[in-house]
Amino acid sequence: MARWKSVAILGVGLIGGSIGLALRKRGLSDEIVGIGHRQVTLDSALAVQAVSTATTDLAAGVADAEIVIVCTPVLQIVPLVQQIASCCRPDTLITDAGSTKAGLADRLGRILAPSTRYVGSHPLAGSDKSGVGFADADLFQDRVVVVAGSSRNSRTDVEAVTEFWQALGARCVEMTPDDHDRAVAITSHLPHVVASLLAGLTPVEHRSLVAGGWLDTTRIAAADEELWAQILLENRDHLLPLIESYREQLEELTKALQRGDRTALTAQLRIGKQRRNAVAS
Amino acid sequence: MARWKSVAILGVGLIGGSIGLALRKRGLSDEIVGIGHRQVTLDSALAVQAVSTATTDLAAGVADAEIVIVCTPVLQIVPLVQQIASCCRPDTLITDAGSTKAGLADRLGRILAPSTRYVGSHPLAGSDKSGVGFADADLFQDRVVVVAGSSRNSRTDVEAVTEFWQALGARCVEMTPDDHDRAVAITSHLPHVVASLLAGLTPVEHRSLVAGGWLDTTRIAAADEELWAQILLENRDHLLPLIESYREQLEELTKALQRGDRTALTAQLRIGKQRRNAVAS
Repeated sequence: MARWKSVAILGVGLIGGSIGLALRKRGLSDEIVGIGHRQVTLDSALAVQAVSTATTDLAAGVADAEIVIVCTPVLQIVPLVQQIASCCRPDTLITDAGSTKAGLADRLGRILAPSTRYVGSHPLAGSDKSGVGFADADLFQDRVVVVAGSSRNSRTDVEAVTEFWQALGARCVEMTPDDHDRAVAITSHLPHVVASLLAGLTPVEHRSLVAGGWLDTTRIAAADEELWAQILLENRDHLLPLIESYREQLEELTKALQRGDRTALTAQLRIGKQRRNAVAS
Repeated sequence: MARWKSVAILGVGLIGGSIGLALRKRGLSDEIVGIGHRQVTLDSALAVQAVSTATTDLAAGVADAEIVIVCTPVLQIVPLVQQIASCCRPDTLITDAGSTKAGLADRLGRILAPSTRYVGSHPLAGSDKSGVGFADADLFQDRVVVVAGSSRNSRTDVEAVTEFWQALGARCVEMTPDDHDRAVAITSHLPHVVASLLAGLTPVEHRSLVAGGWLDTTRIAAADEELWAQILLENRDHLLPLIESYREQLEELTKALQRGDRTALTAQLRIGKQRRNAVAS
């Protein structure tokens, strides 16, 4: 089983904090360094023992790390990886937990030295909750983590990142950054759009009439809007054509309703039912 | 506490079966008569003891009933209530569990004799599951049931129907049929549309990348498409303007994505988050 002397985590919120708790619970690392720019967040991470030491000094925090995981909002990942690469040991492995991969791979591919060991990853373990207070040592147990190696990555490095997530209990799937972004546009980003707009249209005075259907369908709308605006914008090239397909489906359903066409409406709902059952099975 | 000598249930699926199980568990009725047109369904209801007797003969089934609950798909409710009214005792109370109320109240108001004791109701206890196999004696515990009395109903009858659902553990809310339909268009029917179209657009090959968000958002898409096509059509006068508002929100979000406007996108997602938190609280 893999073990690390020192792991550094940049951003100790739900994901970063859960990585720390999982490492500690499984005894996988002698030292778990939390790095952030707000002392209050670091103090919370120390209090729940998600990290063993904490610092606001990035260079000091990554100095001894064998592996660094960047768990910040998507927009901060590129400058942070660049900064880490400039001050870490030459053999330090760097990964991130960002929800989009192609833009990062592209920009970092142009910036980083070929020798820098950066491989992107994405644990599919988000939540409508955020903050280290919701961190969970078992968050990655049996969850999928996409390891999105690009052409600049060696097999060794892709496998080392895979080994890291597997050590936390995750099932790893290898995909190119672009294939990843195309897939999550429909499995994660469009659902977020759809849920958020539905919640936004619901008047508070009807709250006594909400039941399981509305609550399930809108759950992810409660997630952090700043994080999600970044994610949706990062992946807009894949998301926009999907929104257009969605709009077309909505128009087809509207027309069936307008002409009272129960056969067409039933057929359209049947596709949703069959696909839901097939995808969730 | 209210008790009934004989209760008749038309349609012993998830809702009808759960009514029967709840009556039996709480010892509320000496006789629970299941009525249906398929013997195999009635046999299943007898097997799980959701009903104490069962018949395919509607007139015989309702002959002794103090209260009859029609738990069939929406389109069958009007002719069935009419038929029940023609053969039950003059003092028999009739209600239904249909997901829409205004069309039924309107059509039945024109057909029924003023003395017929019909009051519409709607237990908000649906599911993506169907059939008596999923029936649950506690399905109505702490759930909302809308009692949708119309101008033709006496207070006594509205209260008698309220007492029935309360005896099964439900919290009753009184609304006019039209107010009910306007509210459920946004709390139940638009969520169904939104979830179904999202599921229908998801390719099966991406199933390894679905996580909690997609699963929650699409859950109700697995419900029976025939039932739901009827419900959406029955309520299209309230649903169509909502779909139009939804389409406008989608267009606003699309434009913010296209012009890379993170401030506008964040603001729109924030409304969804705030409304989700307020409505679900």
